[in-house]
Amino acid sequence: MEPGPPGCSRPAEPGPRLRRLCGADQEASVALLSRARAEAELQRCVPAVAAVLPAGGSGERMGVPTPKQFCPILDRPLISYTLQALERVCWIKDIVVAVTRENMETMKGIIQRYQHQRISLVEAGVTRHRSIFSGLKALAQDQPDSQLSKPEVVIIHDAVRPFVEEDVLLKVVTAAKEHGAAGAIRPLVSTVICPSADGCLDQSLERARHRASEMPQAFLFDVIYEAYQQCSDYDLEFGTECLHLALKYCHIKAKLVEGSPDLWKVTYKRDLYAAESIIKERISQQICMVMDTKEDEELVGHRLEEMLKNEFSHVKVTSGALGHTGRDLQQIILEQCYNFVCVNVGAYEFEETQKLLDVLKESDLSILYPVVVISVHFLDCKSVPFGQKMENLMQIREFAKEVKKRNILLCGLLIYYPQDEQKLQDSLRQGATIIATLIKERNSGLVGQLLVA
Amino acid sequence: MEPGPPGCSRPAEPGPRLRRLCGADQEASVALLSRARAEAELQRCVPAVAAVLPAGGSGERMGVPTPKQFCPILDRPLISYTLQALERVCWIKDIVVAVTRENMETMKGIIQRYQHQRISLVEAGVTRHRSIFSGLKALAQDQPDSQLSKPEVVIIHDAVRPFVEEDVLLKVVTAAKEHGAAGAIRPLVSTVICPSADGCLDQSLERARHRASEMPQAFLFDVIYEAYQQCSDYDLEFGTECLHLALKYCHIKAKLVEGSPDLWKVTYKRDLYAAESIIKERISQQICMVMDTKEDEELVGHRLEEMLKNEFSHVKVTSGALGHTGRDLQQIILEQCYNFVCVNVGAYEFEETQKLLDVLKESDLSILYPVVVISVHFLDCKSVPFGQKMENLMQIREFAKEVKKRNILLCGLLIYYPQDEQKLQDSLRQGATIIATLIKERNSGLVGQLLVA
Repeated sequence: MEPGPPGCSRPAEPGPRLRRLCGADQEASVALLSRARAEAELQRCVPAVAAVLPAGGSGERMGVPTPKQFCPILDRPLISYTLQALERVCWIKDIVVAVTRENMETMKGIIQRYQHQRISLVEAGVTRHRSIFSGLKALAQDQPDSQLSKPEVVIIHDAVRPFVEEDVLLKVVTAAKEHGAAGAIRPLVSTVICPSADGCLDQSLERARHRASEMPQAFLFDVIYEAYQQCSDYDLEFGTECLHLALKYCHIKAKLVEGSPDLWKVTYKRDLYAAESIIKERISQQICMVMDTKEDEELVGHRLEEMLKNEFSHVKVTSGALGHTGRDLQQIILEQCYNFVCVNVGAYEFEETQKLLDVLKESDLSILYPVVVISVHFLDCKSVPFGQKMENLMQIREFAKEVKKRNILLCGLLIYYPQDEQKLQDSLRQGATIIATLIKERNSGLVGQLLVA
Repeated sequence: MEPGPPGCSRPAEPGPRLRRLCGADQEASVALLSRARAEAELQRCVPAVAAVLPAGGSGERMGVPTPKQFCPILDRPLISYTLQALERVCWIKDIVVAVTRENMETMKGIIQRYQHQRISLVEAGVTRHRSIFSGLKALAQDQPDSQLSKPEVVIIHDAVRPFVEEDVLLKVVTAAKEHGAAGAIRPLVSTVICPSADGCLDQSLERARHRASEMPQAFLFDVIYEAYQQCSDYDLEFGTECLHLALKYCHIKAKLVEGSPDLWKVTYKRDLYAAESIIKERISQQICMVMDTKEDEELVGHRLEEMLKNEFSHVKVTSGALGHTGRDLQQIILEQCYNFVCVNVGAYEFEETQKLLDVLKESDLSILYPVVVISVHFLDCKSVPFGQKMENLMQIREFAKEVKKRNILLCGLLIYYPQDEQKLQDSLRQGATIIATLIKERNSGLVGQLLVA
């Protein structure tokens, strides 16, 4: 069965607060309006959907004291990325998160700090199944003063699978509506074997005939709620597989949907490393160059731009942070560009950079991800000696210190501007390499540094 | 069954060439001698062992054109890390690698560049089983001019599991000697299900009763060679599991050995990211501070050392790169420390750093991993103005350029040295943060930069 139209897909890395930002911007409003129409259209096709996220685990396999859903990636807890992935899907009405009593305040803090929307918290049980059951009960309006309403379809997902896409969510929801239950599957990476009691090989399963059952899964609410109400204490205590409960207690054979490799579950410490690298890679694809194109050095700015195109898949240019072109920058912020290269060529070293920082501080861009800003300056050795130029530029340390509080990582880059064409080429190339390194590593340890190309 | 004594375990991150280095060093020779005795002892207990490494895969799941075993991690192909893990185990006599004809020259280049030992190459077949069979044939002395001799036990491992430890290798070998076959297993991360023909759930397997079959595996050579000779074309074409062949054709029930999470297989792009982070973390645990302890600024050097102890688990100090204490440094190199902080306080800015670089260039330390060197300088504003100090220190760019060819990543760090105690404390703390960042990221893009704390 084909999924319905994915019309209301939001951008890859959105934040809930971007709606507010674009209220002031007419072009963006028009775009939002047509998106809103598409969303309304989709909502007619898609049933009432809620999601339940069990997040009561202790993360013992990770080998770290913090439960894995709360482990930080770029200083933000893993679960916040998963919530972000779910809340950008407009047709998911409610997201119920089950957390242990001891993590309830932590979770409330995360929701507030990262401005998550449509989240309700319930207390987790001692096992995964018990936590999911708590979430379902909250949706079934068993609770007297609940704000939630019973959905037609419920998605069950893991707090530690942050890269789930709208596409697969829609597939499992649509399949669940038709079949009663559906779940994402993946090919097996290893052969599965069945050990005998004495720890020897009894039987190996044919790898091609089996699949790994992953998340998300979706169910007609009445089916899965019935299954949980029927199921035994043994199931609640030792079971792990929701599809199995639907089969055992409601005789529903779930539809299996092939998922992408992105659905993998953050289980071990190495998975946290992988998740961090993936997130860094995703937000380092595009950069915005801010430069005053009327200046003499325009040419050098544009040549740097050419070099940067070798390092980044999207290089946007905006000519100055304020004035009649300010809207461009707002638009670029709205499109969630997290990397800025600001070319300063005026008499006052930091004019453009300061304007840019003011705009960024006004926006909410850096709530979800650290934003990298690189303040670029040129050194024409004939006019100012190197040492003096460096002293002038050391002011960047103060700016950097201030904006770091706002999750903006500011560095300076001084590019030699020799007469010799080949040397200039080399300087610009090295400049582009340094910019790419700073953006891709996104490490706060180098904030306020002045690098030289 | 308990494994034999792991007496010949080599250090965690060794290189084959370190033997040569320590030839000149008497203390090290003594250490090596007693290690050699332990090795000889172990070799009496452990049977004649060879390893076969199928490396003919195309890496299609990775989504990149390079086969995954050749994907670079810190500029070195993944397979080289796996070879390093096997060759540091002294009782593995031969390592037979099966590579496709088109990658044969690449593989020879890797063996030469990274000085791998005890490796023989055979041509891979079109499937995993055919590649393993090629390796076994080479060991069976079917080939007329082979240098190899038939082992009692053969280990089969994957080229894309670089983190295998001697411990688990010994366990599977010992178990194979007793049972005829043995393999590492891991708990299942996901439930395994069996889809019906129409893509619905037929049955889910009880997760606790099943295991994932991982590598390494080991076999009595005669058992597995017999199995491969007997097995059908269908098995060779579509099978993946060696334990299954031993069971089916030789009725050997393999002993299953619980492995560590480290045994995981680099399968997707995210696994490459994880592997890189793990490798970086492993070689960033210890640093060596080189400083002339007779100088006035000794105190500051030692205070920096204290700060660095918050960032690194092992901080070693050696007082000067040459002279009567030069042997310390040799010993530290021998113990595979890949991170150096060199404190310069003399009249000539780079005296200590240059001595250190000379020693490092003489050694082979940087063949396997990029070595980070941070040249630390202090700025007492009363004696030299900042701009002039910066100009003096820019010379580091030339040194850095030269040693980068040798895989040595050199950066400079200028630490303010104010009279105010609190400010000095802050400078040193920031200096330690910058040092930790440079070492942990190990990024060649920032080579030659002069950072300021």
